[in-house]
Amino acid sequence: MNQKELFEQIKKKRSYLCVGLDTDIKKMPPFLLEKEDPIFEFNKQIIDATKDYCVAYKPNIAFYEAMGTKGWESLQKTLDYIPKDIFTIADAKRGDIGNTSSLYARAFFETMDFDSVTVAPYMGSDSVKPFLEFKNKWVILLALTSNQGAFDFQTIKTEKGEPLYKEVLNTSKEWGTNDNMMYVVGATKAEYFKEIRDIVPNHFLLVPGVGSQGGDLDTVSKYGMNSQCGLLINSSRGIIYASGGNDFAEKAGIKAQILQRKMNILLDKYL
Amino acid sequence: MNQKELFEQIKKKRSYLCVGLDTDIKKMPPFLLEKEDPIFEFNKQIIDATKDYCVAYKPNIAFYEAMGTKGWESLQKTLDYIPKDIFTIADAKRGDIGNTSSLYARAFFETMDFDSVTVAPYMGSDSVKPFLEFKNKWVILLALTSNQGAFDFQTIKTEKGEPLYKEVLNTSKEWGTNDNMMYVVGATKAEYFKEIRDIVPNHFLLVPGVGSQGGDLDTVSKYGMNSQCGLLINSSRGIIYASGGNDFAEKAGIKAQILQRKMNILLDKYL
Repeated sequence: MNQKELFEQIKKKRSYLCVGLDTDIKKMPPFLLEKEDPIFEFNKQIIDATKDYCVAYKPNIAFYEAMGTKGWESLQKTLDYIPKDIFTIADAKRGDIGNTSSLYARAFFETMDFDSVTVAPYMGSDSVKPFLEFKNKWVILLALTSNQGAFDFQTIKTEKGEPLYKEVLNTSKEWGTNDNMMYVVGATKAEYFKEIRDIVPNHFLLVPGVGSQGGDLDTVSKYGMNSQCGLLINSSRGIIYASGGNDFAEKAGIKAQILQRKMNILLDKYL
Repeated sequence: MNQKELFEQIKKKRSYLCVGLDTDIKKMPPFLLEKEDPIFEFNKQIIDATKDYCVAYKPNIAFYEAMGTKGWESLQKTLDYIPKDIFTIADAKRGDIGNTSSLYARAFFETMDFDSVTVAPYMGSDSVKPFLEFKNKWVILLALTSNQGAFDFQTIKTEKGEPLYKEVLNTSKEWGTNDNMMYVVGATKAEYFKEIRDIVPNHFLLVPGVGSQGGDLDTVSKYGMNSQCGLLINSSRGIIYASGGNDFAEKAGIKAQILQRKMNILLDKYL
């Protein structure tokens, strides 16, 4: 899916919501444990309930990897089940030397068929570029994450007087285009969005941390939105664990719909 | 395996060699493709031929992940086949927010039973600490990698006037101890080893880039060795693809033995 197609979906659904499929077998309603593949069954019902309100799904790969080969099977089935007009993000935070990153790219873009994968920047250009060689596939590079540890290195100042994450943005934006690169920017730091937009005005930003991590949707949209929307706002736990009971999917659908309605208004306000 | 036990193995085998199992189905002798699990069969023969000369094995996870669920099965079988007195490294370069890093830790330390996993530092303390909560397990944190992209961010100077990788060392060494943390330091930058030893005198360093990436074993050993040896020198392609023919395992064994003999001498010289 390219940028234009993604923006078309946003306009059609009046939503820039990404649903995070951080599916934990320990947090699902007990009746699902009797199913042959509880993880997939949970995801299937979540997808059915939320697909009209979101434009992207983002399975966090750790949750599947922790289950061993069964987890990878659940992930593949989940990916196959997602409607083809919805953007898919492998939240894997991979990155290695060039020939090895090529293999990670093969894993997520060929062995599986994700639209995008999140990548860590620490190892530099040759760890990222192999992912950019795949047509109509995206790298979503970590810039400023939503966790406390972001302040350990991402915000320390370089000798240019700028925080490291800005150097990551400035350097890496030359590696690809706004049609094959996005950035992760945590919503818990909404005051940074304006400055980030000065550096990458046209790139999409994937924004975790709205909801359970405390970010504010209106502020992020005000400072983060560009003329193509340019935002994918992720909510994981706030949607998929809205209820721990047998009505988990219904409640997830309601939560997603509420966010979609807010986004509908914010698109009128800021687009 | 703890630091003392690892050092015991180094003294017993007179080797600090780590063999990288970067096993690529496209690079193995054709006769292996007829086996049920060519990746495992290749690794099994490599392990048989090299186990007397090395103290660690390091499968790079990308090579297995690219093969889908079959790859993970080959990885598990390989891990099970490695003798228990040899240190195992999941070269995965993982790292995510706290609750997610816990799941990656579960994947490599519980679902599988690796001794250690490589972790990327960009997301800071809470992305690393969950791995440190497992007894007798290790984090091997990326400090200075052996690829060209290392110069994009790892070596840029912070406002303190020090390169970023030194800030990573200084900050992160407080998160664990030299009995549960090691660092990745690329051998292609041997001149940095002395300075790194000033910051982390007692930690083990995992050193890729000797051999096919151009690093020099004697220089690395001279500046990198400490009183517990403190070095694991990795060679992947230089050993496992020493021959592309039916004698691949025999040639791999010879290559590993040559490195072990050099290390035997260097242990006398610098330990």
